Amino acid sequence: MIDDTIAAIGTAPGEAGIGIVRMSGPDAVAILDKLFVPTRGSSILEYAGRRLTHGHIVDPDTKSRVDEVLVTYMKAPYTYTAEDVTEIDCHGGIVPVRKILELVLRHGARTAEPGEFTKRAFLNGRIDLAQAEAVMDLIRAKTDVGFDVALGQLEGSLSKEVKVIRDKLLEMLAHITVNIDFPDEDIEELTYRTLKEQAEGIEQNIEGLLKTAHAGKIIREGLSTVIIGKPNVGKSSLMNALLRESRAIVTDIPGTTRDVIEEYVNIQGIPLRIIDTAGIRETEDLIEKIGVERSKEFFNRADLIIFVLNAAEPLSTEDEQIMQLVEHRDAIVLINKIDLPSKLEENKIKELLPGKRIIPISVLEEKGLHELEDAIVKMVYGGEVKHQDHSLVTNTRHKNALERGKRSMEDAIRAIDSGMPLDFIEVDVKNTWDYLGEITGDTVGEDLIDKIFANFCLGK
Amino acid sequence: MIDDTIAAIGTAPGEAGIGIVRMSGPDAVAILDKLFVPTRGSSILEYAGRRLTHGHIVDPDTKSRVDEVLVTYMKAPYTYTAEDVTEIDCHGGIVPVRKILELVLRHGARTAEPGEFTKRAFLNGRIDLAQAEAVMDLIRAKTDVGFDVALGQLEGSLSKEVKVIRDKLLEMLAHITVNIDFPDEDIEELTYRTLKEQAEGIEQNIEGLLKTAHAGKIIREGLSTVIIGKPNVGKSSLMNALLRESRAIVTDIPGTTRDVIEEYVNIQGIPLRIIDTAGIRETEDLIEKIGVERSKEFFNRADLIIFVLNAAEPLSTEDEQIMQLVEHRDAIVLINKIDLPSKLEENKIKELLPGKRIIPISVLEEKGLHELEDAIVKMVYGGEVKHQDHSLVTNTRHKNALERGKRSMEDAIRAIDSGMPLDFIEVDVKNTWDYLGEITGDTVGEDLIDKIFANFCLGK
Repeated sequence: MIDDTIAAIGTAPGEAGIGIVRMSGPDAVAILDKLFVPTRGSSILEYAGRRLTHGHIVDPDTKSRVDEVLVTYMKAPYTYTAEDVTEIDCHGGIVPVRKILELVLRHGARTAEPGEFTKRAFLNGRIDLAQAEAVMDLIRAKTDVGFDVALGQLEGSLSKEVKVIRDKLLEMLAHITVNIDFPDEDIEELTYRTLKEQAEGIEQNIEGLLKTAHAGKIIREGLSTVIIGKPNVGKSSLMNALLRESRAIVTDIPGTTRDVIEEYVNIQGIPLRIIDTAGIRETEDLIEKIGVERSKEFFNRADLIIFVLNAAEPLSTEDEQIMQLVEHRDAIVLINKIDLPSKLEENKIKELLPGKRIIPISVLEEKGLHELEDAIVKMVYGGEVKHQDHSLVTNTRHKNALERGKRSMEDAIRAIDSGMPLDFIEVDVKNTWDYLGEITGDTVGEDLIDKIFANFCLGK
Repeated sequence: MIDDTIAAIGTAPGEAGIGIVRMSGPDAVAILDKLFVPTRGSSILEYAGRRLTHGHIVDPDTKSRVDEVLVTYMKAPYTYTAEDVTEIDCHGGIVPVRKILELVLRHGARTAEPGEFTKRAFLNGRIDLAQAEAVMDLIRAKTDVGFDVALGQLEGSLSKEVKVIRDKLLEMLAHITVNIDFPDEDIEELTYRTLKEQAEGIEQNIEGLLKTAHAGKIIREGLSTVIIGKPNVGKSSLMNALLRESRAIVTDIPGTTRDVIEEYVNIQGIPLRIIDTAGIRETEDLIEKIGVERSKEFFNRADLIIFVLNAAEPLSTEDEQIMQLVEHRDAIVLINKIDLPSKLEENKIKELLPGKRIIPISVLEEKGLHELEDAIVKMVYGGEVKHQDHSLVTNTRHKNALERGKRSMEDAIRAIDSGMPLDFIEVDVKNTWDYLGEITGDTVGEDLIDKIFANFCLGK
């Protein structure tokens, strides 16, 4: 089915020791052989598979050396894509990988679409769809917890749980089929009772998975956070203090660099995605306007607002204006600079922002930061889910499929309760089976598959 | 001598398919063996060297899987460092490489200093110092030309030329020694004549290398360029037009991201390093101030100023103020918006900026951009040097060594001309020999070596 050879740069762009260009497909080895001159011998084919071999990439047209490299080839099917795969390890940096990629494209490979290597692994049946999606989650993971959850999914933890539920659905369908085909009035009541037990069990299983979804999504995508407050209350210092405390920092996201800078702060395994609207380029008028509009958009979409007030000043009109913005949002109120004499009316804040968590802090003296962290952790996990649970549902697509599955299981239960004919119940059960199959990719269309892999990064 | 094992992340940070952690040193294989559980078999040692082997990195303390990986080990001495080297290819992204690096550090490796892998290759005698420096130039290359020059140097092109000159110096020293030890008045004149011929030949060889240094440095480091002009003359549009024309763009330099954004525009192989002072973060007062100061600093240090004027407006006071700044600098004057009716007094510009190249352009209609490119190319090569010459001197350190060598060769020639005793001449020749030896690292101290490698990137 797949008969062309794809190529892409596998490493991130930037100055580094090593860059990798990889190919996958029927011509991966032949193209490499055309371009690679080993230091010993005359062809990569003289070397065993999977062996790193030293030599040069040489342009066959000009005979000029392109770079000194280590190459390897891996024969199908025990490779990432289950196809022939070749890798060219060259010098790091922008130029060598690009030059080598251009050369392999000129000699018969085509540029891989984002995620196409992993898509091939899926289409060739090496991994299921949830596992393929976990690959991207691994790469995008912002914290150790997020990474561990994704690794668990890659190793099939979620797929296994989904499979268990689908097996139960199959069992239920078999039970229905037998009783439709050979209806036996004597045992009809028994049939309905059994079906109800099965349906409720399945519904609870789905519910159990869904419970992990809220924290799971945040662990995967980060808690989108905006720090707000009038000038000079200590927003930048707070940001720096959080950055210093946490270990994992992603300075910027490739591709969006020129627009917005996102910083990830690791709060006990939760990636706080702080959107730094100050990083928006402020050149000439048009761009500045876009900047302001984007800031608003980020504010409106944020999961969490951290509202910073200055303890050493009385409430100002500006503060109160911000309060109105924050009032109906998930927000934590920080009263900063408690090292200074207090002039802020805390009671008034409680009155204007009822129910909001208020934390006195001093960024300068590093007081109150742990309370802030604890408040964030509590918000995310809601005291329920332990992140050690590796079967967390982290992906919105999976969550939606589970929700639809749960709803049609509820339909089935209602149908059983009201003694509907078995054919009706069968439809609901079959729907649940299909919805859950979307997670592992057993029951998805080509369009959806294309859409899912389009969100991958290049070279994976 | 080197008895510890170093480790570093070899790939650039960012979302990508593959990340690599590499180790070098006597324990590189043993540490990998402690952490790696192959899919088949129980130890990496069961696999042949240089073979990519599939399995998992497992934390021996917690027994938990850290990542799914391909690993390989390469035995000394046929490796990058000439030591035992191991590589762990894991998932791309920030987290997996960091987790694995932490694990290998906990099990006996220590963090490699910048450039330490290459430094070991040098200290172990696999490459000379000029070749080691070429490695970093390869990684930092901004254009194909810059890359090719660096690759030539890595393969020893500069080292070979230096060696040829040093061989001639040795020959000259031998000639001097023989005649000091066995002075023969009859052939004294002949000796001096021979020495002068030799000295002049050597001086010309050095001069030949030095001639390539101006363009070489720019090819390596980029032509530091500032675009200046009052608001609304089309600076941003010019920048965008240049970026669109050129293929290679480095969006930002890791580590400095938060301060300044440099963009590289590839002008016929010459990297124009345009410093985008607008990219400086403009939050709160202190930082803003730093920004303005930095802008000035960049302006003062720039190799080239591109001064943009608006053809559709008469000269303003602001324009004339900028002219004063530009007057004594290497600058190209662009008169933009020639698609509009002209109101600018070109004669006055010629009068105020005598000798400056003035190019009428229209960024909107894409007119005059090639003239700008040609003017830049002419400035860099001065019509002399062809960039095809791979023995270009690109490195300031090499240039300085060559200049010192040339000066002491001139001293030798003067000494010969004035009939000084041979011992005096010998000193100058010996100095030249030492200076040129600094390029290949034959005659440099440990301090300088440390300093050179400290400028490398991590993981190489």
